[in-house]
Amino acid sequence: MAKQDPIKSPTARGLAPLALQYSSSIEYDTALYPFDIAASIAHARMLGRQNIISSDDAKKIERGLTEIEKEIESGEFAWREEFEDIHLNIEVRLREKIGSAGGRLHTARSRNDQVATGMRLFVLSVCGALTEQLTALQDALLGVAESNIDVVMPGYTHLQRGQPVLLAHHLLAYFEMFERDAHRIHGTFERTSELPLGAGALAGVPYPIDRESVAEELGFDRISANSIDAVSDRDFIIDLHTSAAVLMMHISRLAEEIVLWSSEEFGFIRLPEEFATGSSIMPQKRNPDIAELARGRTGRVYGNLMATLTMMKALPLSYNRDLQEDKRPLFDTVSNLMSTLEVLTAMLPALEFDAARMEAAASEGYALATDLADSLVRKGLPFRDAHQAVADLVLYAQSQQKALGDLALDEYRRFSPLFDKDALSIDVHSSIAARDVPGGTAPVRVAEALKLARERLKGDA
Amino acid sequence: MAKQDPIKSPTARGLAPLALQYSSSIEYDTALYPFDIAASIAHARMLGRQNIISSDDAKKIERGLTEIEKEIESGEFAWREEFEDIHLNIEVRLREKIGSAGGRLHTARSRNDQVATGMRLFVLSVCGALTEQLTALQDALLGVAESNIDVVMPGYTHLQRGQPVLLAHHLLAYFEMFERDAHRIHGTFERTSELPLGAGALAGVPYPIDRESVAEELGFDRISANSIDAVSDRDFIIDLHTSAAVLMMHISRLAEEIVLWSSEEFGFIRLPEEFATGSSIMPQKRNPDIAELARGRTGRVYGNLMATLTMMKALPLSYNRDLQEDKRPLFDTVSNLMSTLEVLTAMLPALEFDAARMEAAASEGYALATDLADSLVRKGLPFRDAHQAVADLVLYAQSQQKALGDLALDEYRRFSPLFDKDALSIDVHSSIAARDVPGGTAPVRVAEALKLARERLKGDA
Amino acid sequence: MAKQDPIKSPTARGLAPLALQYSSSIEYDTALYPFDIAASIAHARMLGRQNIISSDDAKKIERGLTEIEKEIESGEFAWREEFEDIHLNIEVRLREKIGSAGGRLHTARSRNDQVATGMRLFVLSVCGALTEQLTALQDALLGVAESNIDVVMPGYTHLQRGQPVLLAHHLLAYFEMFERDAHRIHGTFERTSELPLGAGALAGVPYPIDRESVAEELGFDRISANSIDAVSDRDFIIDLHTSAAVLMMHISRLAEEIVLWSSEEFGFIRLPEEFATGSSIMPQKRNPDIAELARGRTGRVYGNLMATLTMMKALPLSYNRDLQEDKRPLFDTVSNLMSTLEVLTAMLPALEFDAARMEAAASEGYALATDLADSLVRKGLPFRDAHQAVADLVLYAQSQQKALGDLALDEYRRFSPLFDKDALSIDVHSSIAARDVPGGTAPVRVAEALKLARERLKGDA
Amino acid sequence: MAKQDPIKSPTARGLAPLALQYSSSIEYDTALYPFDIAASIAHARMLGRQNIISSDDAKKIERGLTEIEKEIESGEFAWREEFEDIHLNIEVRLREKIGSAGGRLHTARSRNDQVATGMRLFVLSVCGALTEQLTALQDALLGVAESNIDVVMPGYTHLQRGQPVLLAHHLLAYFEMFERDAHRIHGTFERTSELPLGAGALAGVPYPIDRESVAEELGFDRISANSIDAVSDRDFIIDLHTSAAVLMMHISRLAEEIVLWSSEEFGFIRLPEEFATGSSIMPQKRNPDIAELARGRTGRVYGNLMATLTMMKALPLSYNRDLQEDKRPLFDTVSNLMSTLEVLTAMLPALEFDAARMEAAASEGYALATDLADSLVRKGLPFRDAHQAVADLVLYAQSQQKALGDLALDEYRRFSPLFDKDALSIDVHSSIAARDVPGGTAPVRVAEALKLARERLKGDA
Repeated sequence: MAKQDPIKSPTARGLAPLALQYSSSIEYDTALYPFDIAASIAHARMLGRQNIISSDDAKKIERGLTEIEKEIESGEFAWREEFEDIHLNIEVRLREKIGSAGGRLHTARSRNDQVATGMRLFVLSVCGALTEQLTALQDALLGVAESNIDVVMPGYTHLQRGQPVLLAHHLLAYFEMFERDAHRIHGTFERTSELPLGAGALAGVPYPIDRESVAEELGFDRISANSIDAVSDRDFIIDLHTSAAVLMMHISRLAEEIVLWSSEEFGFIRLPEEFATGSSIMPQKRNPDIAELARGRTGRVYGNLMATLTMMKALPLSYNRDLQEDKRPLFDTVSNLMSTLEVLTAMLPALEFDAARMEAAASEGYALATDLADSLVRKGLPFRDAHQAVADLVLYAQSQQKALGDLALDEYRRFSPLFDKDALSIDVHSSIAARDVPGGTAPVRVAEALKLARERLKGDA
Repeated sequence: MAKQDPIKSPTARGLAPLALQYSSSIEYDTALYPFDIAASIAHARMLGRQNIISSDDAKKIERGLTEIEKEIESGEFAWREEFEDIHLNIEVRLREKIGSAGGRLHTARSRNDQVATGMRLFVLSVCGALTEQLTALQDALLGVAESNIDVVMPGYTHLQRGQPVLLAHHLLAYFEMFERDAHRIHGTFERTSELPLGAGALAGVPYPIDRESVAEELGFDRISANSIDAVSDRDFIIDLHTSAAVLMMHISRLAEEIVLWSSEEFGFIRLPEEFATGSSIMPQKRNPDIAELARGRTGRVYGNLMATLTMMKALPLSYNRDLQEDKRPLFDTVSNLMSTLEVLTAMLPALEFDAARMEAAASEGYALATDLADSLVRKGLPFRDAHQAVADLVLYAQSQQKALGDLALDEYRRFSPLFDKDALSIDVHSSIAARDVPGGTAPVRVAEALKLARERLKGDA
Repeated sequence: MAKQDPIKSPTARGLAPLALQYSSSIEYDTALYPFDIAASIAHARMLGRQNIISSDDAKKIERGLTEIEKEIESGEFAWREEFEDIHLNIEVRLREKIGSAGGRLHTARSRNDQVATGMRLFVLSVCGALTEQLTALQDALLGVAESNIDVVMPGYTHLQRGQPVLLAHHLLAYFEMFERDAHRIHGTFERTSELPLGAGALAGVPYPIDRESVAEELGFDRISANSIDAVSDRDFIIDLHTSAAVLMMHISRLAEEIVLWSSEEFGFIRLPEEFATGSSIMPQKRNPDIAELARGRTGRVYGNLMATLTMMKALPLSYNRDLQEDKRPLFDTVSNLMSTLEVLTAMLPALEFDAARMEAAASEGYALATDLADSLVRKGLPFRDAHQAVADLVLYAQSQQKALGDLALDEYRRFSPLFDKDALSIDVHSSIAARDVPGGTAPVRVAEALKLARERLKGDA
Repeated sequence: MAKQDPIKSPTARGLAPLALQYSSSIEYDTALYPFDIAASIAHARMLGRQNIISSDDAKKIERGLTEIEKEIESGEFAWREEFEDIHLNIEVRLREKIGSAGGRLHTARSRNDQVATGMRLFVLSVCGALTEQLTALQDALLGVAESNIDVVMPGYTHLQRGQPVLLAHHLLAYFEMFERDAHRIHGTFERTSELPLGAGALAGVPYPIDRESVAEELGFDRISANSIDAVSDRDFIIDLHTSAAVLMMHISRLAEEIVLWSSEEFGFIRLPEEFATGSSIMPQKRNPDIAELARGRTGRVYGNLMATLTMMKALPLSYNRDLQEDKRPLFDTVSNLMSTLEVLTAMLPALEFDAARMEAAASEGYALATDLADSLVRKGLPFRDAHQAVADLVLYAQSQQKALGDLALDEYRRFSPLFDKDALSIDVHSSIAARDVPGGTAPVRVAEALKLARERLKGDA
């Protein structure tokens, strides 16, 4: 249609080009279009239903916005820098398309509640996508645990070998972390699911609007209770950042272990070629770049949290333009996190474990000393005395350059008369089997835990 | 009793004094004593019930620990640096008091699950105390709103006066923030309420323990599902830090407003002498030090969050000594937050508002322009056209150096024929009353919101 | 030329598409091209000079790279995603253009020292640009101070009016902050100006290279002293982040004051239309969006510092792929900072100060009480006693609802016999003039300070 | 002397107990006493010299303060909570001791410039102590390198073995990092060394003071140029935090390597008993707790930086009470850093390296492949072609399950006719020796680097 009279930004019209560029967000906020359009359509329908605008105008607006959405999706929409953000770009285009009816869309709302609504819809959508991808990662993790159900490895404290455990048990520790992450994301979702539209600039609007029906149409759980809070609040974005930061922290621990385990020194895993870089000259090399990058990106996710907390510090109510700076850190964290979850979900099932080497590592040294001590305790020796007896035994074995398994029973008995044949039968498998408590590494417990985890995933999915 | 044989730290005995000092936490972890003792008593009772130790030993342990708790409370307990933390100090004292039975307390547990249990009990206790203090702050806030129910003030955007609002409405925005904070603390509580005891060093323990009964006795909602996760996890501490960071951010906004409002330029509040510092020479001065300090302490609460996230980054499983560094940032944040909540709760009711000055500020200038535009929209003019008409009107008034209320009707009508006598009756009170939507600032809505807030508080309390 | 045989990434050839995408930096690292090319040319020339490659090959390489630089500048260069970063894209193109000689460019270097060299050249270039822009901002600041040399305003502590000062004196406080920023950036420059090339992958290279000549050609002050450090180190990037964080902190303080001063309550400045947004309906409005955005972006600059510190935490030597994550936070901070400096440099000279209102604010109340006390001290009264006398006087004046200037001499003398006619002549101008010490606000001192600042700027420029 | 009239805090007298407690810093700021007293003595002397107070009063003040310092050092000084900070405690005690002369000390200064002066003296003192301790750590590092000059180890990238290096070369990488840290601390010192005293509350003072002489007496390089900046600025504290954060980051990398190297998998070092904790039951265990704690404390040092940056964000000029929150994070970082440097300085010389195991690790696998390729390049093959030939060779060797050293010459020549006997003589020692470039790992270069490092240390000391 004809561009009869040039439309200008109502707020930015006099800005120097440098200032317009500095304050414009159109370079990065276009990702919000589906949310902005959905919210505008719901708003227009409500205005029509409430007779605040004519039902005819409401229909025109809805049709116009639907067409604009298609223009954006097809790539033919021309974003214009002079209209500083996505919201104004869409509104201007609407007025070009449908004329004065377009000028009625902004009745009973302001940029402040409009922007807050778009951001909340975005975060709700992200919570859904993250939960889904996290479930896929948990599913992959369980698959690895199930396929390697018999693999034994050393459990570590201080990066020193402690007690033998099942690899599946170790992996289930990450399953638990991700469960908590899902719980945290769910809390974020709950707090986000609140419609700000209707708050106007800050005080509410002087029109007989029906906020509940808009909330329902857009899928919000409830409407915001206070108009000033509605336009001032960005807690929901910080909530997403904190959920993301803890999740990335968990991933950084898993990534660290993948790096360690793929070193020549550990040799626990061989990385699949599809997820390792080589060296131009040492083609056998399998560098754990993906894990390193995931670990490194933890920094950015932490940084984005700090950026947003800092931005919010000591802002007086209600809306301040500082709030525009909520977007880039959020988009960066979301894309970082989603891509990291995806690539790990693809990589985990392709890891090859060297079960023999892992079990050997679990058997070496004096890792079974606690089992020996526990056997004495079960025969009545106080815990601290049993520990002392075994400590002396270990020092003796070490002086003889023998493993505990190489000692004869009478050598054992020099340190406690309570030792008997049972002592000789202690090995990694008996040690693991003995930890038969809820949450313990005994095979029967791990099998139960895997089953339960599968059930939890189904419930989540 | 006689100190027959010197007991040494089982793990730190050979440490150089410098290294012992560097690794000791006894200087700051004694605050954990009630939690450590409660957990040990519950553990000993269970060991007795399960016949892992004799019921006689279990009773001796319980009696000994109860006495030790009294010694600590009365200040006669002598903390010893050579026993590097509170847990060992208590255990050593127990062995001094009850002899070999004391050596059985550590059966079927390790320092790793013991420490995790103590920290979780501490955080659960903190969640309770914070929630209570937050409720008290909300109660104070509601009191201020109720006592000043008729006070009108300018609502601000960009720290520019926007639309008039009720002070009570403005304060209710903070009530909403604190509601979300309570929700966040509750989520922290839920994720914390999981008993790690029984995880042993990392793999579970080889004794027929009954974890569920210990959980029940200590008030945990459930037992941890994976022993490796149980000793590696500090999410619950980060959760508390994130809850605290967002809460302090809210407080920093309130503090900023108190600073602004008590400036000579705003002049909205006069600080009570009990909560302001003066100047040695200008005794009439009322510096808002408390608000400034609260605002400044936001930094420390953010910093402690970042400290803990950094500490956890890329740690391989399971327990690493780095985790000891979870304590000081946590204690610092808790004491910062509790004292800040307390002092604000006491200060808020003592603020004196200058209602006349606040209403005057809300009336000056062209703050009612949007109300004029809305009156045209309601008469059928498209939103954007109405805005244009009023914008021209404002420019005209400004050129005449008149307020809008000083213009005659025919001056109005030069800019739109739709203006009628209604335009002349617009004032701050009609403007406020017009925002009669859920969440809006109309007195009837604010009264409802206050009532609802009172009900919510009662439900929370 | 013909693309005879398809060249593949030597390190990433087997990567799954998802993994390639995850690890690729080509999307954002192309900004490094001038630095990468300059370093490669210097390297090739040196290889030629040292007869490590033929001088003919060296010339071919130089010519090829020069052409590639033009292709990039003209926009005809086709970046290819399958070559994961800018370095490989350029090398591949070189081999397409000049054949096997291109395969000799990478002699005696590795991606590790190449990347470190490019990043250092980038940071050196940024230090230069920042210093220049900072000088421009300081110049603008001095201009404002000089044009408003007679403007008096209240100096604030606790956002309460303290003593009167010259606006120029207040602005010079920012000049000093920016001087320190320049010093910090200079320290960053010094530590960055160290050539890593020659470190190879990590251990040095087995060729008779001449590192000093490469350093000289590229403008580095010296060569790195240790090859492992050379490829592991990113301190220079953190140095830039810390310089940026402190500079943005300063800017956030200035921005805060612009926001305060342009509020109706302060009314000290009127923002130029070119640097303020209006309201669609209140065209007289001048929202301080630029200052708010600058204040808000402080968060991102802090966050990027934290991101990079976190990334580096606990990385073992030498190169780890995590280091690739140094780029995006750096680029984000640089563009944030440069644009902020630019927009402020343009905005400051356009601020309109309301001198009358500022002086009135400085005169109101009891701001001159300290001057009265100092007059008593100069007559021999101990400081603390003088303060007490004036404090009593102020309370008396307040009870009479009078300003100090409205009191008669005998009223003064009720509080101290030392008061004489001098007391009646104290006003903002005498108060300001009395602070005639180095660094004080007396006009003569401020004039000197302005002159000195101009000289310092010339020295810096 | 008699406590004739009770002295009250001039600013905090009316505070509610809760508010006094909240705003008091006396609990933690007493460490500043030597700096506060030194500054007060220098101030009093100058006041006497300038005849602002009588020389008799000046002498009384100096004598009184000297006595107070002794009271504090001997522990007999009674800190009183009702005087909220160290500065007032000392001033009150002075007035008790010397009467009205004590009331003249505060002439021509205010708490604002006094506090800033004390903090700067503290930071200058910390810079000195840190530099000294850092030199001691570097000395220890060089000692370890020198004592293990022949030890060979794998150089790592991606935690994969890359090329063999000397352990001494690896350790020298840390020497370089610490050199940069010293440079950063020096920059902090330079920017800190500026006397704020004379700025008064904010505007300068109306007395003929001689600031230069006070600066000289206290050892400052210069006086501050602007009184408002002087009381508003805390850059010097942030500078210390950033220096500390980068230094702790370096330490976290060293700590990570100590943890890795002392794992059973690496087995490169055995920790001295004095710096390792054991297990009650596995007395042979050597847990790297000191390294883990150092790594973990990195978090707190980062967090304190973030705390202080956050505190300063967007504070208007000049002094605000928020600034009091500069102290605790600073003290925490300083004690963290000093103790970490001390314990590492003591621990490093006691590490036992397993040279045989390290060299074996450097020899295994295909770590010498790049040396082979470089030998081909030196015979004229383009770099990329040489890499391809060796890559094929490595794959062949791997398929034969042979090390490169196990292949016969004709097997080599299948992949390039340029291979000759030289290929067979490549081993870790020839590889290391070949990297004979400045900064490279060749023994002759490392020996030079050690010598140079020793000289640099002497220059620094």
